[in-house]
Amino acid sequence: MTTTTQIRLAAYPVGMPQDSDFETVTVDLPALADGQVLLRTIYLSLDPYMRGRMSTAKSYAASLQLGDVIVGGTVCEVLESRSPYFAAGDIVLGYAGWQTHSVADAKHLRRLDPAQAPVSTAVGVLGMPGFTAYSGLLVLGKPKAGETVVVAAAAGPVGSAVGQIARAKGARAVGIAGGPEKCRILLETYGFDAAIDHRSPTFVDDLAAATPDGIDVYFENVGGAVTEAVLDRLNLYARMPVCGLVAGYNATEAPAGPDQLPGFFRKVLTLSLTVRGFIQSDFVPTHYKDFQRDMSGWIRGGQVHYLEDIVDGLERAPEAFRGLLTGRNVGKLLIRVGDDPTAG
Amino acid sequence: MTTTTQIRLAAYPVGMPQDSDFETVTVDLPALADGQVLLRTIYLSLDPYMRGRMSTAKSYAASLQLGDVIVGGTVCEVLESRSPYFAAGDIVLGYAGWQTHSVADAKHLRRLDPAQAPVSTAVGVLGMPGFTAYSGLLVLGKPKAGETVVVAAAAGPVGSAVGQIARAKGARAVGIAGGPEKCRILLETYGFDAAIDHRSPTFVDDLAAATPDGIDVYFENVGGAVTEAVLDRLNLYARMPVCGLVAGYNATEAPAGPDQLPGFFRKVLTLSLTVRGFIQSDFVPTHYKDFQRDMSGWIRGGQVHYLEDIVDGLERAPEAFRGLLTGRNVGKLLIRVGDDPTAG
Repeated sequence: MTTTTQIRLAAYPVGMPQDSDFETVTVDLPALADGQVLLRTIYLSLDPYMRGRMSTAKSYAASLQLGDVIVGGTVCEVLESRSPYFAAGDIVLGYAGWQTHSVADAKHLRRLDPAQAPVSTAVGVLGMPGFTAYSGLLVLGKPKAGETVVVAAAAGPVGSAVGQIARAKGARAVGIAGGPEKCRILLETYGFDAAIDHRSPTFVDDLAAATPDGIDVYFENVGGAVTEAVLDRLNLYARMPVCGLVAGYNATEAPAGPDQLPGFFRKVLTLSLTVRGFIQSDFVPTHYKDFQRDMSGWIRGGQVHYLEDIVDGLERAPEAFRGLLTGRNVGKLLIRVGDDPTAG
Repeated sequence: MTTTTQIRLAAYPVGMPQDSDFETVTVDLPALADGQVLLRTIYLSLDPYMRGRMSTAKSYAASLQLGDVIVGGTVCEVLESRSPYFAAGDIVLGYAGWQTHSVADAKHLRRLDPAQAPVSTAVGVLGMPGFTAYSGLLVLGKPKAGETVVVAAAAGPVGSAVGQIARAKGARAVGIAGGPEKCRILLETYGFDAAIDHRSPTFVDDLAAATPDGIDVYFENVGGAVTEAVLDRLNLYARMPVCGLVAGYNATEAPAGPDQLPGFFRKVLTLSLTVRGFIQSDFVPTHYKDFQRDMSGWIRGGQVHYLEDIVDGLERAPEAFRGLLTGRNVGKLLIRVGDDPTAG
């Protein structure tokens, strides 16, 4: 009998998730049925959307119930298989969540080829965050060569991919991040045309200076004060794909006034703006193959770079997740739950 | 030498336009050049967008300068022609603005056939307001049969067309209007499935009762408190074409808090909403022919009805315009500047 150690939702967080909102338990896993495999988690991806699942607000995805294992994309090793499609030793992409071991139906897994790319990228630049950037920017943002694309949280896995894809398409990429170190990475690692520190007292002026021709696409994944400054720079017909609002995920009440909503709608009207919320999974049937081909090509061609921030040990997931919500990490945040047998 | 009496912008209004924001002058018109015609205004269309032109805020359209004649669509009679395309006595659609006579280039005019439809409809149900409804609803709102479409200012020329087109496409049409008389018209004249009075103390509950399956398309032409109630009823993937915000056109500052903008973006994200500002003229090249064909057919077939509210005398335009902004009139508001020789 194999056991798994799981982190479960113990309470719906109010504001920033606390340790007491999680509980760690070790339980036996059921025996494998036909078509199932036993998995050992190697990497657990931590992503901002998880905060939304820890809430009962109406959303595209069902809320977690109290007692549920926290969800999450994972890279796993197959320990045992009762499926003809997988064998022990295979490395697979799955959705095991915050736990060390799991039983999964083979049909929900995809085999990874360590010779093609480091397996961790399957939950990063070649996985959900990369596809969020790709589908949101290209399907909804539709940047044309010479246009200006702005993205916040630009040093994160989604934002950095947005900027680099924008440049691959001939657009000007302007990244917004918190602090000079992240801004340096935007310019030196990711090749943004300009990097702006939203913590700077001159942020609004810096944004204006970096967008002399206004903003044609604002890829929204942050919200809050950054968004308000960006709105003032939008051009006619600007597009605004909305994939996340990490600045407000822990908000417990509407912020104080004045009410910015009427002014926002005035901009939507007078600038013929397109504002479009989306979840990347809606574009998987139509655009995932193109993404895999394009993104692999850009990585091989040196047009797209990525950074990873790897934290060892499942028990550190809650703390690391809080850091993610406050912008502490640089690069794709991964929990290394167990050894990576493919690592060089 | 022909003279024209014009109403010009004397000052940018602060809040509701006052009589002192307008000035009336009578001036000589220039002699006709080749390709020009002399026009006598029959009908002047009054529309909410004009309030936006009386402002210096950034917009898709240039602001009026102080001293400019107020803009507006007009139905005119040709008095004299130096164009081979028009003859004296022709009735034409033009854009003469708030004045009794004008000189226009023939290329900016379109001849109207009084035998096809009352000429006043060229600035109403068969003109800009009708096309605003048609293009916004069908190109951007894309209602499917069985879906629920909600429109505010539903007794107005745009809103009433939105509801009737929605029904022609098999959708459920719910109209919001101010007061029981307008609501009665929605049901009896325009055939909406439900009509809701936004002035009623039970408005929010009434809206919920009228939209048991939620809202799939909200055609936004009002803004303010109505919009906030609608947002709470939107379904996943709801579409929100934004063609006007008459509730806020006279606002001089952002309303008091709390700030609803973060909560709005949360809805955009979690419901995968599409919010799209537009101006009908952007769709003229691609959809105007279809509109003329479809709308004429619906009027002939009894699927689309329209009402007109005709005020006699150019001098009453400022007062009538204020009434328009406060929802005083029912039906398409027209100033009859001069006799209609085609009227039966």
